[in-house]
Amino acid sequence: IDKVLRGLRVGTLFHQDARLWAPVTDSTARDMAVAARESSRKLQALSSEDRKQILYSVADALEANEETIRAENELDVAAAQEAGLEESMVARLVMTPAKILSLAASVRKLADMEDPIGRVLKKTEVAEGLVLEKTSSPLGVLLIVFESRPDALVQIASLAIRSGNGLLLKGGKEARRSNAILHKVITDAIPETVGGKLIGLVTSREEIPDLLKLDDVIDLVIPRGSNKLVSQIKSTTKIPVLGHADGICHVYVDKACNLDMAKRIVSDSKLDYPAACNAMETLLVHKDLEQNAVLNELIFVLQNNGVTLYGGPKASTILNIPEARSFNHEYCSKACTVEVVEDVYAAIDHIHRHGSAHTDCIVTEDPEVAELFLRQVDSAAVFHNASTRFSDGFRFGLGAEVGISTGRIHARGPVGVEGLLTTRWIMRGKGQVVDGDNGIAYTHQDIPI
Amino acid sequence: IDKVLRGLRVGTLFHQDARLWAPVTDSTARDMAVAARESSRKLQALSSEDRKQILYSVADALEANEETIRAENELDVAAAQEAGLEESMVARLVMTPAKILSLAASVRKLADMEDPIGRVLKKTEVAEGLVLEKTSSPLGVLLIVFESRPDALVQIASLAIRSGNGLLLKGGKEARRSNAILHKVITDAIPETVGGKLIGLVTSREEIPDLLKLDDVIDLVIPRGSNKLVSQIKSTTKIPVLGHADGICHVYVDKACNLDMAKRIVSDSKLDYPAACNAMETLLVHKDLEQNAVLNELIFVLQNNGVTLYGGPKASTILNIPEARSFNHEYCSKACTVEVVEDVYAAIDHIHRHGSAHTDCIVTEDPEVAELFLRQVDSAAVFHNASTRFSDGFRFGLGAEVGISTGRIHARGPVGVEGLLTTRWIMRGKGQVVDGDNGIAYTHQDIPI
Repeated sequence: IDKVLRGLRVGTLFHQDARLWAPVTDSTARDMAVAARESSRKLQALSSEDRKQILYSVADALEANEETIRAENELDVAAAQEAGLEESMVARLVMTPAKILSLAASVRKLADMEDPIGRVLKKTEVAEGLVLEKTSSPLGVLLIVFESRPDALVQIASLAIRSGNGLLLKGGKEARRSNAILHKVITDAIPETVGGKLIGLVTSREEIPDLLKLDDVIDLVIPRGSNKLVSQIKSTTKIPVLGHADGICHVYVDKACNLDMAKRIVSDSKLDYPAACNAMETLLVHKDLEQNAVLNELIFVLQNNGVTLYGGPKASTILNIPEARSFNHEYCSKACTVEVVEDVYAAIDHIHRHGSAHTDCIVTEDPEVAELFLRQVDSAAVFHNASTRFSDGFRFGLGAEVGISTGRIHARGPVGVEGLLTTRWIMRGKGQVVDGDNGIAYTHQDIPI
Repeated sequence: IDKVLRGLRVGTLFHQDARLWAPVTDSTARDMAVAARESSRKLQALSSEDRKQILYSVADALEANEETIRAENELDVAAAQEAGLEESMVARLVMTPAKILSLAASVRKLADMEDPIGRVLKKTEVAEGLVLEKTSSPLGVLLIVFESRPDALVQIASLAIRSGNGLLLKGGKEARRSNAILHKVITDAIPETVGGKLIGLVTSREEIPDLLKLDDVIDLVIPRGSNKLVSQIKSTTKIPVLGHADGICHVYVDKACNLDMAKRIVSDSKLDYPAACNAMETLLVHKDLEQNAVLNELIFVLQNNGVTLYGGPKASTILNIPEARSFNHEYCSKACTVEVVEDVYAAIDHIHRHGSAHTDCIVTEDPEVAELFLRQVDSAAVFHNASTRFSDGFRFGLGAEVGISTGRIHARGPVGVEGLLTTRWIMRGKGQVVDGDNGIAYTHQDIPI
């Protein structure tokens, strides 16, 4: 594990500083997780109003400490530039005054959101005077591993407070000063009745492998970063991971498509943000569209916008384009695979064989074919006549986005705050006992919530 | 892994029979899982009515083959008796004509249940003419590892068919002939359009460790057997496990209790089925109850019913009973731990420190103390004035029970058929694109379902 994960640190800006970065033992990582759970229970015991007030205090503290935050951030940025870090990485690192204000505003928005804890999801009368409720409840302790963006720390910490969870944060070393000051500002705003240990910032060098071993005290890992980061974490821990390693999304253009619509959806799906996980990586086209030149029009619109095309066995011959190395490839750039398929069944089969079950789309005017595709494609998100780029928590209207999951357990696709929750069964009785099921007359009536 | 899991087979009735039990390679296990997923997709593509019909055919086939099933079962039972298997194990193995009829009836009941697949759980207008639905969907491929009871095979197979999932079954060797004939009867009743590979019966000797490695093709493991089986599986696989290893359930009797009710609930929680996972293992009593002799009355009712008591540091002195080895102990028998606590806060703290987050109960007439306990105890099931024995899928009214989960992810506590489901996001549009979020006016209105 150690060796695998050390690979993640290539290219980061680690400076030896024994005081801040002293190696810690496994018990420290465990202690942090245990302390976070204890604090989270105190947080859960507060009233909804008190939890809301903590978020207001965090927002105020961010604004009040704007200058200090910027000063620390500028040191990170300077060090990153000095070390020749990629321009895009440096850009993600910078915290402008506007960004800090907007973070504070988003924390206040989260404060005003309906309390996600303690909602009654289902209510049943089990027997006369014996009432069962299924209620939403915090998951426990989350571990977030994130790269670059120090603003992710603020978003995640405030989501954890809103949902009553404990949190361990492991940020990229290129942002270590920014992360340290943001962590201090936030935890200082948490009242003593809860305790700042609710949110632990892991700053040591060796600790990711240690943390990933703690499946008995950490309930969920959320990696926020490259595909490589996510798949390395997935392959080295028994803790459930909420995230997506691959996003091999397909657009299937059916023979009954509206050509203008198909061009618009295909372009947007690839070009709106080519490196996004919900961008199209493979275009599948019905074989009949070769004859009436629709295939060519779709190809032109991509090529005219600078997309490099690779073909499957059929398309590479028909279109005279290089053959794709594999149908399971995610380009993450202005490139995609094209293939011609027999019909919608062949398209569905191709998606099941080669997709990553993230987001897949059909473009067709035939409602029966559309419903068949929507019913049979076994992916987290399946769209009819809409760009794959809509597959996103904010666009779905989930409010705060936790991430996108291609796992099938717990939460799937774009995940809002409910991905940070579990359930508890609460039963209120009057002394009822089971007594071999003779002691009770079950009624099992649903009670409207 | 191999070594750990081989431990599970001690005491089973393995006979060398190269034809049936030839070792298989990893690719075979993988092939079975892949084939089960392919068949499950065909099953999902059927209409709800067609899936229902399969279950009716299974029920008919069980009745039609009653004699053959009993003949094979009698061979298992005879071999078990000859090998000197425990009487209770042999009893669980026996399939009487009545049991077979009742299994067929329960399969028909499941057939008549509302289709769990494709239900719309949430509906949102994302923008004008762009509608998003969150729908229930099969999880994929399940692996069930079960001991003894061949009836579990029938229950689980019919649950898998109802929920559109593929299934791999690994039964105990003491029931191998019964499992083989039941598997044949069920899969013969599955139409060719779906294929009998929907349900694979793993009969080889070495295959559990192989199966537990297949986290890329198996979505969930459900162990049905001893605590030891569950914890060994949990510690050797990256596949999510739905189950419970420990059930350390508490009853806390508050100072404001009704004595008769407390006696009734404490007795039922321990004595209704002492070895059950939802039986009381620890009785916590408020310190004030020592003075007014309530503590003694609670102790007497347990001792008079043959329960052996062990005390925590305080209770063992007060009551002059042997000290408990640990508060984290599950007796699974007519024995339990008793301790005296300061107040409800100390009780909650004790439960968090020593419990297994399965089911915990407070007995009190004080509504404020009750609500505090219900709100703060972080267990899958938390009860006020009701026996811990109610923590069960059938008693909760969930219909078919999949199991009880002490995990915090996906499903928690008693789990019905929804534990075998995930979700898919379905979006229907009219050609909408994202275009940097400039191409669309988000409305994000909830649509009533």
